[in-house]
Amino acid sequence: MNGKQEHSRRGVLRSAAGVTLGAGIAAGISAAPATAAPATAAPATAAGPGGGRKPRQVQVAVLLYDGFTALDAVGPYEALCRVPGVRVTTVAVKAGLVRTDTGELGLPAAKSLREVPRPDVLVIPGGGERGTTASMADARILDWIRRAHRHTTWTTSICTGSLILGAAGLLRGVPATTYWASRPYLKEVGAIYTPGRFVESGRIITAAGVSAGIDMGLHLAARLSDEEVGRAMELALEYDPEPPFGTGSPEKASPETTALALKLLADSAT
Amino acid sequence: MNGKQEHSRRGVLRSAAGVTLGAGIAAGISAAPATAAPATAAPATAAGPGGGRKPRQVQVAVLLYDGFTALDAVGPYEALCRVPGVRVTTVAVKAGLVRTDTGELGLPAAKSLREVPRPDVLVIPGGGERGTTASMADARILDWIRRAHRHTTWTTSICTGSLILGAAGLLRGVPATTYWASRPYLKEVGAIYTPGRFVESGRIITAAGVSAGIDMGLHLAARLSDEEVGRAMELALEYDPEPPFGTGSPEKASPETTALALKLLADSAT
Repeated sequence: MNGKQEHSRRGVLRSAAGVTLGAGIAAGISAAPATAAPATAAPATAAGPGGGRKPRQVQVAVLLYDGFTALDAVGPYEALCRVPGVRVTTVAVKAGLVRTDTGELGLPAAKSLREVPRPDVLVIPGGGERGTTASMADARILDWIRRAHRHTTWTTSICTGSLILGAAGLLRGVPATTYWASRPYLKEVGAIYTPGRFVESGRIITAAGVSAGIDMGLHLAARLSDEEVGRAMELALEYDPEPPFGTGSPEKASPETTALALKLLADSAT
Repeated sequence: MNGKQEHSRRGVLRSAAGVTLGAGIAAGISAAPATAAPATAAPATAAGPGGGRKPRQVQVAVLLYDGFTALDAVGPYEALCRVPGVRVTTVAVKAGLVRTDTGELGLPAAKSLREVPRPDVLVIPGGGERGTTASMADARILDWIRRAHRHTTWTTSICTGSLILGAAGLLRGVPATTYWASRPYLKEVGAIYTPGRFVESGRIITAAGVSAGIDMGLHLAARLSDEEVGRAMELALEYDPEPPFGTGSPEKASPETTALALKLLADSAT
């Protein structure tokens, strides 16, 4: 994010012309006056479980590390990036392009960990075995998580990201979830495995695998603003899913499907 | 993707050590012998509606353009990138970083359009108003889509990506879907609006908004391989959604939620 882009964005925010495709038409259909919308123009607040209110911009830091899973990071990003008063930043040990678990795609980290020492919200995506285990042993990442967590409103993870939180010592005795294939590992970091698309324990929220980051991100959008914003973001993402096969959890999949999923994951790992 | 990375990946694919976190444990639990998995080790085939079989690597090109929506591209990417014999490549007018609709995130295009003239599968994500309308008027993009479409096995879109397909002249008289807020625009490009998370019309598949790219991507994974691979990828993504608010379509959302969603989209646009 450079200064020019920030300036350009502010310009658009001030401009009445900043409408989304279809916004005019749909607004005409719903005939809802502008004043009918909830009071989201008020300063955004980061209201945590403790009820602390911070009338300023909420900084969400999404950690990227070599071997993370793209959708783990982009699901919550997409759910949070339009929440009023929230700014989502990608961070990594070093700023710059970070490769995903397949090695075929990368995402740019806008900032280094050092540049973002006290985000309001931590989002730790999961990754393949190599990326997750490397992060679980990387003192730069673990130290950053531990220090940032002292001040966060919410500390969150998706998929095997919970094992990284666990390696940082944050999940001892904490109810949490993780990727289905990694459930047995939660115990090793002292967490209490708890089923759910996401599990909120105090100010720690852990999500299940990959796509569960969307569910968690929408929940977090409401936590960082209000439920009406959560509802609106769910519509903005048209999150009205119809999984084509109904095999999205090991409880719903056959042993053969489970074995094949593990094989495809292993074969695509770098 | 450079030669070094390709070499490294092949090395991992040959290595028995390329297992995903939890794979060992879960495989032990399911006790499924390796031979119980479907015959996905056979050469991948790109079996289109015409039944043509191509025993070679299937090239999927995901178009990136300034102002695309991140999840529109990453949802299908994640569903397809582990399908045996499939290689997903990001493409743009010029290779390099391409900014999303919020301007806060970018994705790198691995190749220029010129470098990928005949992909087997086209994936056209949607974007905000600025990015979508600019692409609908960009001859470089429209020409590339038209020429590529002559040879594709599948030509697909997510969200307002269908309007770009339409601007290329591909949807005249074709049943199709799009983002909920853009449904009225489909008629303008000659398409026949058809409800659905995705709509398959011959070799064109259009998906509804943003997150619907995951549903479409899983369907496409099965089309490019077989249904067992689709089932396995649905599990690999743990796509067992529980939308927290149940407001993911305008039919399920209140007029106030719809108005707020449009406002948040407009306010976050760059």
